[in-house]
Amino acid sequence: MTTFPLPPGSTIGVLGGGQLGRMLAQAAARLGFDVAILTPDEDSPASRVAAHIIVAEYDDPAALKALAAVAQVVTTEFENVPAAALRALAEAGVPVAPSAAALAAAQDRVTEKSFLNGVGVGTVPFAAADDAEAVKAAAAEFGAPVLLKTRRDGYDGKGQAWVEHATDASAAEAFAAIGGKPAIVEGRADFVRELSVIAARGRDGEIAVYPLAENHHENGVLRRTSAPAKVSAKLREQAERIAAQILSGLDYVGVIGVELFELKDGRLLVNEIAPRVHNTGHWTQDGCEVDQFEQHIRAVAGWPLGPTHALAHVEMVNLLGEEVLAWAKLAAEPETRVHLYGKREVKAGRKMGHVNRLRPL
Amino acid sequence: MTTFPLPPGSTIGVLGGGQLGRMLAQAAARLGFDVAILTPDEDSPASRVAAHIIVAEYDDPAALKALAAVAQVVTTEFENVPAAALRALAEAGVPVAPSAAALAAAQDRVTEKSFLNGVGVGTVPFAAADDAEAVKAAAAEFGAPVLLKTRRDGYDGKGQAWVEHATDASAAEAFAAIGGKPAIVEGRADFVRELSVIAARGRDGEIAVYPLAENHHENGVLRRTSAPAKVSAKLREQAERIAAQILSGLDYVGVIGVELFELKDGRLLVNEIAPRVHNTGHWTQDGCEVDQFEQHIRAVAGWPLGPTHALAHVEMVNLLGEEVLAWAKLAAEPETRVHLYGKREVKAGRKMGHVNRLRPL
Repeated sequence: MTTFPLPPGSTIGVLGGGQLGRMLAQAAARLGFDVAILTPDEDSPASRVAAHIIVAEYDDPAALKALAAVAQVVTTEFENVPAAALRALAEAGVPVAPSAAALAAAQDRVTEKSFLNGVGVGTVPFAAADDAEAVKAAAAEFGAPVLLKTRRDGYDGKGQAWVEHATDASAAEAFAAIGGKPAIVEGRADFVRELSVIAARGRDGEIAVYPLAENHHENGVLRRTSAPAKVSAKLREQAERIAAQILSGLDYVGVIGVELFELKDGRLLVNEIAPRVHNTGHWTQDGCEVDQFEQHIRAVAGWPLGPTHALAHVEMVNLLGEEVLAWAKLAAEPETRVHLYGKREVKAGRKMGHVNRLRPL
Repeated sequence: MTTFPLPPGSTIGVLGGGQLGRMLAQAAARLGFDVAILTPDEDSPASRVAAHIIVAEYDDPAALKALAAVAQVVTTEFENVPAAALRALAEAGVPVAPSAAALAAAQDRVTEKSFLNGVGVGTVPFAAADDAEAVKAAAAEFGAPVLLKTRRDGYDGKGQAWVEHATDASAAEAFAAIGGKPAIVEGRADFVRELSVIAARGRDGEIAVYPLAENHHENGVLRRTSAPAKVSAKLREQAERIAAQILSGLDYVGVIGVELFELKDGRLLVNEIAPRVHNTGHWTQDGCEVDQFEQHIRAVAGWPLGPTHALAHVEMVNLLGEEVLAWAKLAAEPETRVHLYGKREVKAGRKMGHVNRLRPL
């Protein structure tokens, strides 16, 4: 029986062995916790900084039993955790944060946007589409071009296609491009900036929100984040309200990443939510006293949340693929903090690390 | 054959599994390195955050061979590394930093002070003493009371005794108290403050010095550090010169801790040097962009050194023994960053963790 706040010396289980799991493990160790990583990867970035490593598929019953035996609480570095895994952990009596319901809300784009609108948070107009006919109808309704996405499993721009015209041909082409899977059609957002907000909710309902970040994507992949973003007090309050509505609406425990579109009229729409630590929150590692990773561990462990104000301005740049080979040059820049993930293989577009470039506020 | 700068993905070996090894391992992982820990401890703080763990005595030939096989460079978290270990690693062709010569200089208090005076750095007057007779003679020469210490292996106030009077009885009592081991007699320093300076030297001879810290000991154990200490530019320059003389004199690679006595007349004497990351440098974790742990890894890996200026004022307080049980209260203080070492057993006086309390500069 786990009791909160979780005392140091306890073990926190993490589903996933990537860079987010690695940085979560490091934050947990700083607070005196041990970490157990469950990952199908034989040699993962996270497993090399963790006390316990279980190499298995995420829905492997024996592996989940082993994780439940060693960990007092389990969290995740990704949203697409199989429902079977969450059920097995629940049956073994291990608390999981964020909850299965919170993860489910983010696993399906139609469910996600319906939830958001339900708690009073704005999104682009959207419609579920299970065939090309429905795609065309939605394109006609929202006005082409519209964006077609698979309902599930897309990330970093994968599983997406533009529907250029509200025609049979355009709709069929886009629907084929995403593999003919159950989809969502999203009306185009006429946004002026892409922003994001990282926020956390503790087990007692306490909410802490970091300053807004401004993000720049290329080909659907985050290139860089600038934070704190220059925003009016009104915009900041709007973002904080949105974060609180989402966190409370999901009865959430942990850190969440909320991607936002800033419209010309100053309104914020939510593009998507990530029920986990988020790439656009990496700037907090060097810009805040308590970064998003420690904040997530604090929330999951039932500790009080830490301060979220910025100590410095940070420009976070992802190191994609061969960009990481410039490590020696980057390490020599006095204003640059280097974070590398220990990935063995450099692949085109792969997130190999990031840098945080600091300047005074 | 190791080449520098050491590329990310390489493995750094660390002799020692305590909290310093743990924090070194975490810093190394942040830069994309793997870490191999050699420790006699079955369940050490450092091994739970490292990729490779070798459990063996430090002079175990097979263990050292195994470490040399996996690591491209080896460093240490403590100064009393057996000479046999360093020889074995050298024979296996693995670079060790700091070097055997640098470690040797700090292992024996007489050698240490002789070295310091030799490079023009002031210390209290001292004399080697192998029997009570020599203790009495030195007490008479320097003026009692004087401090008697074992030449080797003392730390945190252990292996020390005051010689109250320059008499046979006082000398014999003190010499017996330290176990009748080869000793050093130190004249008393009439100091106004205990300061320390953490500095690093890279493989190319580059030197980086952190701001001075003011330290408070109780029963020979560090209680708290306040940094940056309030000092004049002249004092700071004196400390930087001392650090540079020591680092260059030892042809040193890595971070060194230099404990200083500030005299009434403004002169600094060196109390002792620690050829490793140092408890009085823990404030850099939350007070500087690059902390002493990353700085040490950078030096050892042949990377350029990072910036050392302070971003905040830090009050570092060690959590000794049961003080760590206040973790929940400490975690709730917004200005307090908690660092816990994952030690399984709470023992009286044991360093279980520390907190860094921040305030603006």
